[in-house]
Amino acid sequence: MAFQKVKREEDYSKWYNNIVTNADLAEHSSVRGCMVIKPYGYAIWEKMQQQLDKMFKETGHSNAYFPLFVPKSMFEAEEKNAEGFAKECAVVTHYRLKSDPENAGKLIIDPEAKLEEELIVRPTSEAIIWSTYKNWIQSYRDLPLLINQWANVVRWEMRTRLFLRTAEFLWQEGHTAHATRMEAIEEAEKMLDVYAEFSEEFLAIPVVKGFKTANERFAGAEETYCIEGMMQDGKALQMGTSHFLGQNFAKAFDVKFATKEGTQEYVWATSWGVSTRLMGALVMAHSDDEGLVLPPNLAPIQVVIIPIYKGLEELALISEKVKGLQAELKKAGISVKYDDRDTQRSGWKFADYELKGVPVRVAIGPRDLQNNTVELARRDTKEKSTIGFDGLTEYIIQLLKDIQHNLYTKAKTFRDEKIQTVNSWAEFEAALELGGFVNAHWDGTGETEQKIKELTKATIRCIPIHNVEEEGVCVLSGAASKQRVLFARAY
Amino acid sequence: MAFQKVKREEDYSKWYNNIVTNADLAEHSSVRGCMVIKPYGYAIWEKMQQQLDKMFKETGHSNAYFPLFVPKSMFEAEEKNAEGFAKECAVVTHYRLKSDPENAGKLIIDPEAKLEEELIVRPTSEAIIWSTYKNWIQSYRDLPLLINQWANVVRWEMRTRLFLRTAEFLWQEGHTAHATRMEAIEEAEKMLDVYAEFSEEFLAIPVVKGFKTANERFAGAEETYCIEGMMQDGKALQMGTSHFLGQNFAKAFDVKFATKEGTQEYVWATSWGVSTRLMGALVMAHSDDEGLVLPPNLAPIQVVIIPIYKGLEELALISEKVKGLQAELKKAGISVKYDDRDTQRSGWKFADYELKGVPVRVAIGPRDLQNNTVELARRDTKEKSTIGFDGLTEYIIQLLKDIQHNLYTKAKTFRDEKIQTVNSWAEFEAALELGGFVNAHWDGTGETEQKIKELTKATIRCIPIHNVEEEGVCVLSGAASKQRVLFARAY
Repeated sequence: MAFQKVKREEDYSKWYNNIVTNADLAEHSSVRGCMVIKPYGYAIWEKMQQQLDKMFKETGHSNAYFPLFVPKSMFEAEEKNAEGFAKECAVVTHYRLKSDPENAGKLIIDPEAKLEEELIVRPTSEAIIWSTYKNWIQSYRDLPLLINQWANVVRWEMRTRLFLRTAEFLWQEGHTAHATRMEAIEEAEKMLDVYAEFSEEFLAIPVVKGFKTANERFAGAEETYCIEGMMQDGKALQMGTSHFLGQNFAKAFDVKFATKEGTQEYVWATSWGVSTRLMGALVMAHSDDEGLVLPPNLAPIQVVIIPIYKGLEELALISEKVKGLQAELKKAGISVKYDDRDTQRSGWKFADYELKGVPVRVAIGPRDLQNNTVELARRDTKEKSTIGFDGLTEYIIQLLKDIQHNLYTKAKTFRDEKIQTVNSWAEFEAALELGGFVNAHWDGTGETEQKIKELTKATIRCIPIHNVEEEGVCVLSGAASKQRVLFARAY
Repeated sequence: MAFQKVKREEDYSKWYNNIVTNADLAEHSSVRGCMVIKPYGYAIWEKMQQQLDKMFKETGHSNAYFPLFVPKSMFEAEEKNAEGFAKECAVVTHYRLKSDPENAGKLIIDPEAKLEEELIVRPTSEAIIWSTYKNWIQSYRDLPLLINQWANVVRWEMRTRLFLRTAEFLWQEGHTAHATRMEAIEEAEKMLDVYAEFSEEFLAIPVVKGFKTANERFAGAEETYCIEGMMQDGKALQMGTSHFLGQNFAKAFDVKFATKEGTQEYVWATSWGVSTRLMGALVMAHSDDEGLVLPPNLAPIQVVIIPIYKGLEELALISEKVKGLQAELKKAGISVKYDDRDTQRSGWKFADYELKGVPVRVAIGPRDLQNNTVELARRDTKEKSTIGFDGLTEYIIQLLKDIQHNLYTKAKTFRDEKIQTVNSWAEFEAALELGGFVNAHWDGTGETEQKIKELTKATIRCIPIHNVEEEGVCVLSGAASKQRVLFARAY
């Protein structure tokens, strides 16, 4: 663990990278822009996946799998979508290598194995999925079609950042088909709610649910819903999106269905996704100068037990003592690790589990044995206390709930304080410098939105759902405005 | 369900495709060689994944994720591996598209976005993973490193077949690093045992564990272990492989570790994988002319309950009656579906669940209500019986176990009958015509192996593990042989 600690206050960006790397979450690979997700990081991602998958299935969705590649002509079919992603596409042009005649042991592309049509590595799967749905949907009886896919996607990014922006990332993408406009809109909103619930109850991150402006919409969508979180440095993070796609893809791929009345109608669509970006949100929302802080609901190890001992005899006594505790915790569905390695000192272990964000640490030494106690430390507040051994399981179960709740409350208090309502351009600029969401009137034009972005690097994160109407004037243009929207600098 | 049934005896290949397509497992996509795995097929794959993942974790492995792309120079590093896969590589050469100036709304590759170095879409991940392990392994304390990855891989195939051979497929690939040769060999053998156990207890398919000959080895391996299954048409199917890679990748990527004694040694490696090909095995091993037959341990729906009714009043009575049964089955961890749709007749439902391989069907009509009975049908033997309602849950739990066991026993009896021991070339050819494994003496040379392949299309499936030594003469060459090996025509 010979790594250089970086303080959050000093260099947030370096602090972030340090935690991601040193807590063994991920690292840059030798492939430009692609990351390696390390076992500990992947274990957290697996917990996210399991919970999301459960929620998708409870809302009636099934998983399926569609091809990695999209033929160029298919990719082009929905023009706005294609245009939106064209600049970030990895393109497969050949399907074979051969020995390099001029360089023994080396390979070159076989020019004879050029594809007739280029294949795009999916940046998102609407095109390939809607070209498939054409064959799956004939009648209203085939609707709704509620499908999700867990997959890797590739968007060629020039400036990458572990988890937050990588050329390849892992995600899930839901793609649903409906008989009516209203049903598709309800689906898009339902999945936004699922994301918000997951974010608040599992990631312990409060989010604002809202609509994106036309400028910020998903390419090919009629409406993009999003959840926006606030990071500790005052920057916003888009954590998930849900799109009402209208009939755009149905028209591009000619997907019609026979209604009950016998007419032919185009199908209505949604798509929605969250990605390994949520790992970045998790790190940025809760961690501190000692390292990662994990909400218990997503921690691969929820409780670590560390024996403090001299000699194998003491260790044997401690191991015997904690055996029952381990069993009880496991039975209660809590993941517990007993770290009795003799290759590391206990001080090293304390620091390591702190760095890795394990919510509860139980230390037990010879004096504890005598007194029938343990030392309990919680990662979130760093509080330590000596607790009696009897009833410890129940105590820990409650403590994990408290930690989960505390992390959310803390993040919510922080976020709420970071929503600044302003009424003039001077206030707007000052608020932005402080960091956080700036709640301001906007005249509703893309021009003003763009100008504000150029002047301040702030974007409209969202128009909150159920926004109250309020007469006012745009902070930049002074034109009339009917509602406030949330601006922020963002990842 | 207007599909054409094909009899297994008449056209095995068409029968197979028909089941895969009509039971909604998978279909060909519009991307050459790539398949779409449909929700019902994917649900079976998910059950396989869950069980395998559990077994990998129980044997100490963690999951991680490595990049989809491998730079060409990295791919080349282990020469034999590179040579083995060079002819099947999809190659990314560009990272951007742009508008076609001559064709409005169309896109072309942006020639200015050519990659300096081509990227190979991983056909397998040894290269990218060992280039990463170089940074993870310094000392014997870092070993063993036991990692698994669930991923998609691409091997450009000219002749594809749903699940059995597709350009893109889903798989898991374990990649482990060890301090000693012996430990790596033990790992490769342990994972072969895991695959065999999974195959026999979940897929209900008996397998022969063995070694591949040098000709059939994984490119870059020192030893390839495999499990071989026997399909109903008498062809063998390689269902999983586990490789002892020696120090080949450690040398190619310069991965050394400091031993306890302070010397520097190259690391020893294994890799092992099973893929969506197992879905093909599952279909081919058990299905019949009515459709899929699923072993209960992998069936997404284990029990379907179908009400036989006229009018909503009868339906209400039946629904009320089976409510408790559903709850009890669910509580026992059995996945049960109550299909009370009024859009399909019960005869249609019977045929559909038969086609989809649901192990147990419970039908209940007005007369059953009077008699406190149900009609139970098992998919494997097609036996029907009338059973009293009381104690039904326990009966079904036992029945599912019986079906699982029966499918395995049936497959094993079939497979055992298909192992034919022969002692001459004439016998060899005759046995091959009957189909199945041919247990014959072979002189141990690649030349003879190749010649037999050319003459008969049969390959050496494996040299069984713990093979008994037995003096004999090669069926083709007549040269001395010390053991019999298993030949077969194979998928």
